[in-house]
Amino acid sequence: MKIVITGGTGFLGLMLARALIKRGRLTAPSGKQAEIDEILLFDVAAPPTRPAGLDTRVKIATGEISDAARIASLIDRDDIGIFHLASVVSGEGEQNFDLALRVNLDGTRVLLEAARARGSKPRLVFASSIAVFGGEGMPASVGDAVKQTPQTTYGVTKAIGELLVNDYSRKGFIDGRSVRLPTIIIRPGKPNKAASSFASGVFREPLSGVDCALPVTLDAVMPVSGYRTAVENMIRLYELPAEKLGNDRAVGLPSLDVTVGQMVESLKRVAGNRHLGEITVAPDPFIQKIVAGWPVATNFRRATSLGLAADESLDPIVRGYIEDFLS
Amino acid sequence: MKIVITGGTGFLGLMLARALIKRGRLTAPSGKQAEIDEILLFDVAAPPTRPAGLDTRVKIATGEISDAARIASLIDRDDIGIFHLASVVSGEGEQNFDLALRVNLDGTRVLLEAARARGSKPRLVFASSIAVFGGEGMPASVGDAVKQTPQTTYGVTKAIGELLVNDYSRKGFIDGRSVRLPTIIIRPGKPNKAASSFASGVFREPLSGVDCALPVTLDAVMPVSGYRTAVENMIRLYELPAEKLGNDRAVGLPSLDVTVGQMVESLKRVAGNRHLGEITVAPDPFIQKIVAGWPVATNFRRATSLGLAADESLDPIVRGYIEDFLS
Repeated sequence: MKIVITGGTGFLGLMLARALIKRGRLTAPSGKQAEIDEILLFDVAAPPTRPAGLDTRVKIATGEISDAARIASLIDRDDIGIFHLASVVSGEGEQNFDLALRVNLDGTRVLLEAARARGSKPRLVFASSIAVFGGEGMPASVGDAVKQTPQTTYGVTKAIGELLVNDYSRKGFIDGRSVRLPTIIIRPGKPNKAASSFASGVFREPLSGVDCALPVTLDAVMPVSGYRTAVENMIRLYELPAEKLGNDRAVGLPSLDVTVGQMVESLKRVAGNRHLGEITVAPDPFIQKIVAGWPVATNFRRATSLGLAADESLDPIVRGYIEDFLS
Repeated sequence: MKIVITGGTGFLGLMLARALIKRGRLTAPSGKQAEIDEILLFDVAAPPTRPAGLDTRVKIATGEISDAARIASLIDRDDIGIFHLASVVSGEGEQNFDLALRVNLDGTRVLLEAARARGSKPRLVFASSIAVFGGEGMPASVGDAVKQTPQTTYGVTKAIGELLVNDYSRKGFIDGRSVRLPTIIIRPGKPNKAASSFASGVFREPLSGVDCALPVTLDAVMPVSGYRTAVENMIRLYELPAEKLGNDRAVGLPSLDVTVGQMVESLKRVAGNRHLGEITVAPDPFIQKIVAGWPVATNFRRATSLGLAADESLDPIVRGYIEDFLS
């Protein structure tokens, strides 16, 4: 079977591709396990050099997710599975409303239509976000039954995506699932335009000997998940039989609710004798406002009951990052 | 100022236009009350004869709500107010998914963009529906804080519309409000393709001496509102200052939770000596399934605290219909 990963050359897309290569098989639209013979990483631009850890099964294609003809040309087999990660992120969406709607809303619709057009009812995992929550009515702890009143355009497009994935699934056009991601740490490389980008930077920059200025205060709380766990959960959610999900296909992932101060403590604990860049606090009102609108605590009883994985604590996440990217 | 009513030649659109003519003034984008000098009823088709009760201020225009150039040409003044009622209804949306998305989702986006393009931040009232609720997780009684997991495509497009109206308002592009309508009774004329159409038919057909076959059983519960109350509430919600609404601009209207059996009793009580067509029960699985997915009870504390109106009971609704349409 073929796997398409949109946003595929991004960090999570690449980690997912590597995990799928290692795994070798997935459930096909037929309901049976099938060998993966192609993984297509689709993204708006290709990386300058081919990322490591990808074998010849992995192909890279570029284009606009909102380009219906282009997307239809990629969803070219009935035995296909789709992971839809392509997205404008939170900070960028606040700065460019029209781009967020085109990529996140139009793009998702284009992809859902291409999947529907196959007629084989392919499984599709849509990457949603805890940014679907927010607003005056948000309870202290959010969960799968909480009303979504997002306070960023990014969050709005994710909430709309969840609704569309539910309805395309209800109508039998696809077999969709939405995975509501907390902030995923620790992303290697450069900061991105997500308002949560500092939650990786606070580890990544100091570990590379680079100073890091935090745009929020140390008492800011964020629900986070390690990337290994997040990738594992995307695959587990893909593999779950539809009947286990019922008629709400969107599942909030387990997360650790941690303060930024706890992130710094974990970094120092795990880093041991490594030389660390300096961490300073330099609040940025734009970032602070976005992050303050997100939930600070989540319950993930449904995810746990569905067999999704959870991180034990921050320390193994930091150790995993050092192992994967700094060894 | 100019008022645009989409779906304007439908029943609620016409009743709203008549109420606005009587009222004469409304809050303009400037925040000040202004004389209404034009009411534009926009709809996909014009009625064969000009509806009664409309003076020369009222104009009728036809076209597709998803036609961006057409809609932009109608939103041609800065001093404008918009009531967006145009919609594919519930039963039709279930039968024609693509039409529901084009009219209800694309059409709403086109209208929001046209309003945004004015730059004057016009007020806009979007007609949403209790069909935004549904699914396994729906509580016994719904309210403004309940998660929306609609189980019809119609309900999905309404939930998406609420999210977009919130975000366009948050970004300062418009000053929007969504009015979540229960089933509105008693609509004159012919049955439409709404799954709830029988809730008007059960009164309307017998009062016209026509037999009526109910597609649901007598114990089916429906939240309903009389049209006079619904129109009054659309205007009250339009007139509310934005700060009273906070960051969730969608308000569930007060409703009466009544069984179909109670509708029949009210009809007989109010009809007195009139000859009534016969009512029979002939369950239709398609209609029953849609209606059973909707909430059977609502709380509307927020609506009440905002000063929106409520019906006292069914009897005055039936009397009002006889007065307005059968006298």
